Parts: sequence; structure tokens; C-alpha cells
Amino acid sequence: MTMKKTLAALLLGTIVFTPVFADEAQEKAIEYRQSVFTVVGWHFKPMGAMIKGEKPFNAAEFQRMAENVAFMSKLAAEGFIPGSDAKAGDTEAKDDIWKKPDEFKSKMADFEKASAELASVAKGGDMNAIKPVFGKTAETCKACHKAFRKD
Amino acid sequence: MTMKKTLAALLLGTIVFTPVFADEAQEKAIEYRQSVFTVVGWHFKPMGAMIKGEKPFNAAEFQRMAENVAFMSKLAAEGFIPGSDAKAGDTEAKDDIWKKPDEFKSKMADFEKASAELASVAKGGDMNAIKPVFGKTAETCKACHKAFRKD
Repeated sequence: MTMKKTLAALLLGTIVFTPVFADEAQEKAIEYRQSVFTVVGWHFKPMGAMIKGEKPFNAAEFQRMAENVAFMSKLAAEGFIPGSDAKAGDTEAKDDIWKKPDEFKSKMADFEKASAELASVAKGGDMNAIKPVFGKTAETCKACHKAFRKD
Repeated sequence: MTMKKTLAALLLGTIVFTPVFADEAQEKAIEYRQSVFTVVGWHFKPMGAMIKGEKPFNAAEFQRMAENVAFMSKLAAEGFIPGSDAKAGDTEAKDDIWKKPDEFKSKMADFEKASAELASVAKGGDMNAIKPVFGKTAETCKACHKAFRKD
């Protein structure tokens, strides 16, 4: 429970007689996975800008960022611990993550696989080969957000 | 500049005639590097608990976490872009980071080196060999925090 929600609950009197304390592990997990995605975004966005031609293509830098995204993609899943949903803290994670764990795992696996492929093709430094794999990777982000993230 | 600081400045009238808008790149950099350290902490703390015997030693899990910290250690530095100091957002970063860049780089390099060594020794799964290298890695964190992070 966030500080804000705790205060709101106190003001509403809902936790005066039945105290509910923040589950620190769940809040930490939310913070962790959001951090993972922040790091993913930091490396993903400049790649997107290079793909669109908004930024000059730097093959070495593209490769480095693709490798970082591929590595980070393997770290996100462990942050979705049971109970780390909207009741536990400030998160856009939908409850379906825990209701449809197989579908969620499958979508996360799609992201891992596509970003590994992107890191691999990035080694060649050929924009024509990179472009479709970048698009495919971005689609795995979107598909998971659409199914499992609140707007 | 954070929302809070912007509001405070507006109330004080200091930015009514000389508008200063948030430098998004600097705020993003602050958020990015804090995220990197959050991910570091997520993996570092359970290793510490294993070292202290508060948690059973799981060699494979320890190795995985050590590798994650070693990887993350290489990602932090790029978040300290010029101007991403306390004037730009909510950060504990001291101005000395940008005033003494060589010392800061050297301390970050110490962390990279020690955590790479930790990931390497963790492969052996021998707690007696791991312990001193874990301690050395933790010291690199502390040394950098002491010099470059506000309390």
C-alpha cells in the first residue's frame, strides 16, 4: 500500500480498527519491475529513433542497446510476485497477470525471444535486416501491454 | 525540475517572467540511473542475506544474481548526464559527480570490476571464496555512496 493510499484509508477510518500495513515485499517488487522497464525504455527508445531516421544510425551503439534490452527482458518476470497488484501499490499491472499466468508467461517469453533475436541481428550492423526484427520486438511489447497493462 | 519545485517556483513568482521548464532529458536520466540501482539492489540484497546466513545459500541463484549485478554495473554511468543534478530533479547525487568526474569514473569502475569478479567467483559455488569478494564489492558501493551520494 502506498503512503497516499494508507493516508486515504486512515482518513476514511477504514484501517483504524483493522490496521493494514504495507507489504514491503510486494511494493519492492512493483518498484523493481517498473525499474526494469524504465531501463528497457532507456535503451529501446534511441533504437526506435535510429530506425525512424530521427537519429543517425550508429551500429555499435545500436548493438549495445539491443544487447541491454535482451538482457533486461529476462529480469522483468520475477518482479510479478503474487499479490503485487493494484491493491499492493501504484501499478498499472492488470489482475489478469495472475489470473492468466500461462498467457502472461507466454507474452513475456515472446519479448525475450524477439529481443534476443534483435541483439543477434544487430551484430551484423545491417539496417535492412535489423528493421523488421526491431518491429517484431516492439510488437511483443505492445501485445503484452494491451493484454496486461492498464491504459 | 520536479513538479513540486516548479509549483514552489511559481508560487514564489520566480518563474513567472522567466519561465524555466523541466529538462525532460535530465529528469529521464535521473529516473534511469535510479532504476538501474533499484535493479542492482533487488539482486544484491538476497546475496547479502545468503552471505550473512539469513537465507539458505543457493549457489545457482547466487550466481544468477551476481551476473545480473555485474551486468547492471555497466549501465549506471551513462545516466549521469551533464546537468542531471539536484537542480534538475529529485536526486541524491552530489554535485561532486560532475566536479570530480575522474574520481567518480574511477569509483564506478571499481564497482564494475568488483562485481565482475564476484560473478566470476560465484561460478565456483564456494561460499568461502565468495564471501571476501562479496565484501569487496559491497565496499565499492559504500565508497561511492560516501563520496557522491547525499545522506
